[in-house]
Amino acid sequence: MTSLSIDEQLAYLQKGLSECIRVDDLRERLIASQKTGKPLRVKAGFDPTAPDLHLGHTVLLRKMKHFQDLGHQVIFLIGDMTGLIGDPTGRNLTRPPMTRADIDRNAETYKLQVFKILDPAKTEVRFNSHWLGEMKFEQVIQLCGHYTVARLLERDDFAKRYAAQTPISVHEFLYPLAQGYDSVVLEADVEMGGNDQKFNLLVGRELQRDFGQKPQIVATVPLLEGLDGVEKMSKSKGNYVGITESPEDMFKKLMSISDDLMYRYYELLTDLSMAEIATMRERIHSGTDHPMEAKIWLAKRIIADFHSQADAARAADEFNRVVRRGEVPADIQTMALPEGVAVEGGWHVPRLLAKTGVVESVSAANRKLKEGAVEINGEKVGDIVIAAPAGEAIVHVGKKWVKVAG
Amino acid sequence: MTSLSIDEQLAYLQKGLSECIRVDDLRERLIASQKTGKPLRVKAGFDPTAPDLHLGHTVLLRKMKHFQDLGHQVIFLIGDMTGLIGDPTGRNLTRPPMTRADIDRNAETYKLQVFKILDPAKTEVRFNSHWLGEMKFEQVIQLCGHYTVARLLERDDFAKRYAAQTPISVHEFLYPLAQGYDSVVLEADVEMGGNDQKFNLLVGRELQRDFGQKPQIVATVPLLEGLDGVEKMSKSKGNYVGITESPEDMFKKLMSISDDLMYRYYELLTDLSMAEIATMRERIHSGTDHPMEAKIWLAKRIIADFHSQADAARAADEFNRVVRRGEVPADIQTMALPEGVAVEGGWHVPRLLAKTGVVESVSAANRKLKEGAVEINGEKVGDIVIAAPAGEAIVHVGKKWVKVAG
Repeated sequence: MTSLSIDEQLAYLQKGLSECIRVDDLRERLIASQKTGKPLRVKAGFDPTAPDLHLGHTVLLRKMKHFQDLGHQVIFLIGDMTGLIGDPTGRNLTRPPMTRADIDRNAETYKLQVFKILDPAKTEVRFNSHWLGEMKFEQVIQLCGHYTVARLLERDDFAKRYAAQTPISVHEFLYPLAQGYDSVVLEADVEMGGNDQKFNLLVGRELQRDFGQKPQIVATVPLLEGLDGVEKMSKSKGNYVGITESPEDMFKKLMSISDDLMYRYYELLTDLSMAEIATMRERIHSGTDHPMEAKIWLAKRIIADFHSQADAARAADEFNRVVRRGEVPADIQTMALPEGVAVEGGWHVPRLLAKTGVVESVSAANRKLKEGAVEINGEKVGDIVIAAPAGEAIVHVGKKWVKVAG
Repeated sequence: MTSLSIDEQLAYLQKGLSECIRVDDLRERLIASQKTGKPLRVKAGFDPTAPDLHLGHTVLLRKMKHFQDLGHQVIFLIGDMTGLIGDPTGRNLTRPPMTRADIDRNAETYKLQVFKILDPAKTEVRFNSHWLGEMKFEQVIQLCGHYTVARLLERDDFAKRYAAQTPISVHEFLYPLAQGYDSVVLEADVEMGGNDQKFNLLVGRELQRDFGQKPQIVATVPLLEGLDGVEKMSKSKGNYVGITESPEDMFKKLMSISDDLMYRYYELLTDLSMAEIATMRERIHSGTDHPMEAKIWLAKRIIADFHSQADAARAADEFNRVVRRGEVPADIQTMALPEGVAVEGGWHVPRLLAKTGVVESVSAANRKLKEGAVEINGEKVGDIVIAAPAGEAIVHVGKKWVKVAG
């Protein structure tokens, strides 16, 4: 990758960024790094609470990886100091202080997950408690002397809370300064974060300048839209793909996104260049390629990142077989004939459907029968009672399949 | 003094206070202290910069002494932590960090001065660097978690500066919290300060409550008016009486105040009760006593506090002799006849006056001559040129005296 020209490097690094402050500084540092052979130090901070990452988190990790692709050093900073403190106001009872053991365990879980994207050989994992924990009152005062109250109150969320008379605890003012001080200690060339972090990253720039360092380049990534294409991806909204989910679940979820969102995911969740994505869009637009195929490629790429190429291929095959061709899924559940299904004249179909769980209730089963949506052993069923099949019965309604031992 | 009733104690302690928050709490603690025999802990903080106290500072010290008079313990807290830090913003170049040696030297100077009022046996001298210096980042965060930004911005000077867009450095927010924390560490029952300190003292009340202590009583004293009776007493305004000034200088300065200011000084600078002061005012009003006499008593009392009764008496005598009876002062300056004074026919009086410095210029001398305000050897002089006196000449214009060797 280091054979790329500076312009090509810049284009690669800027792909998908929300903002880069400033591009000229980045260019200058890339040139200097190429001359001296000294890699840039690219920092990003992560919360020490239990990590259970979804694709939204990987946008940032992938941009960090792009710096690694160009030979640079990533600093994966775990902001454990705040975790060790908990909520000092005592208002937030769900945020008790974490123990060292909690934090170390979470750090290991983080590594398992993030090293699926980052290159461990070019990653320093650091904990800010190492320097903040040693900091004394005098140094805190010195640090706070570098910033004014008015400037902190300009930060968007502080400004809104202050205007709305929602309490801002004084300790919250110390965090942006501590985060900026991390950059001083780590001598960061670049700090990355979500675009909601922009203010804090800029504080780092100013503190570095005050401490006689070149101000870091601030590179922010957008918040990834969830599967619905509207809301930000998050656990609580249910519109997420967790990076530890099964290949099959990932595949199904990713196939449900809109075509527009697909291009966005290509931009933010793959290493494809913007030029390659433009070409793809062109081919789909002109009818040369089908969007469904492009979506399958995307899903396979993403699954391969967190599982393997083989897992990705198998998930794609399964999806094709079941969803697109209606074939019996490989992992179909088998069960004994439930009680009450065998009646005079054979099987009572609505009870069969309800008791095996392929529909929610007997009344739903009756509706599905009327709609002609029920198949047993590949044959559409319309009657309430049918002759008991010889051997096993494969029951199929919509996307639900079950095998009854007969 | 401990034979006083609680009401009498309260009256004694409240004399001259700007505010007492809350009087009921103070009453309660005085009663408890009387029962248990445990003295109250009365804290006041002092700046560690070079102490050169004037009477304005003694208003607070005297109120602290009043607690001692009733058997309580005073904590003379030197806020050296801030001195050791200096100005962290680097904006104020005249405030470099102080060394330990500077602070210790100042502390000794403080003791020399304040123990003229305070009883050393009932005074603890403490330095807040002892606990603040050991405080770590984590504890600073915890401390800051007890207070909100909005409440700090309600502080009068912060509010004004914020409104005027004058920078407030973030470290300034830490000082009120640190001062409050001092009260927690010292388990103060009462904190005293100038009425400009009210906000900071109230922070101590709240922090103590958060830390499971009874909130301290906040007792503020007014800022003393200077000799002009208008502006606050201060070095820079020149309207002050320094507590290390000579008895004679103190006497002269104190005799220059107005009658109204005299009563105020009795209230804030002596141990006289309000009832005694009221009686004095009554006697002066009715013509039984002369205000000049009352002013002399005041000056003598104040001088005796910082020098001795004998010094006070001597200063009063000197004042009487020179100012009131026009006698030659004991410390009259002697000099040789200046050049240019001896002229044909004797001495040139305007040149004599100007060159010896009893008036500012020859033109001022001419004016004084015309006014009949010039005496040589006790004789009023009206002429420009007089016969040279035999032997030494005592020259006198207004309050200025000089002896010319002839």
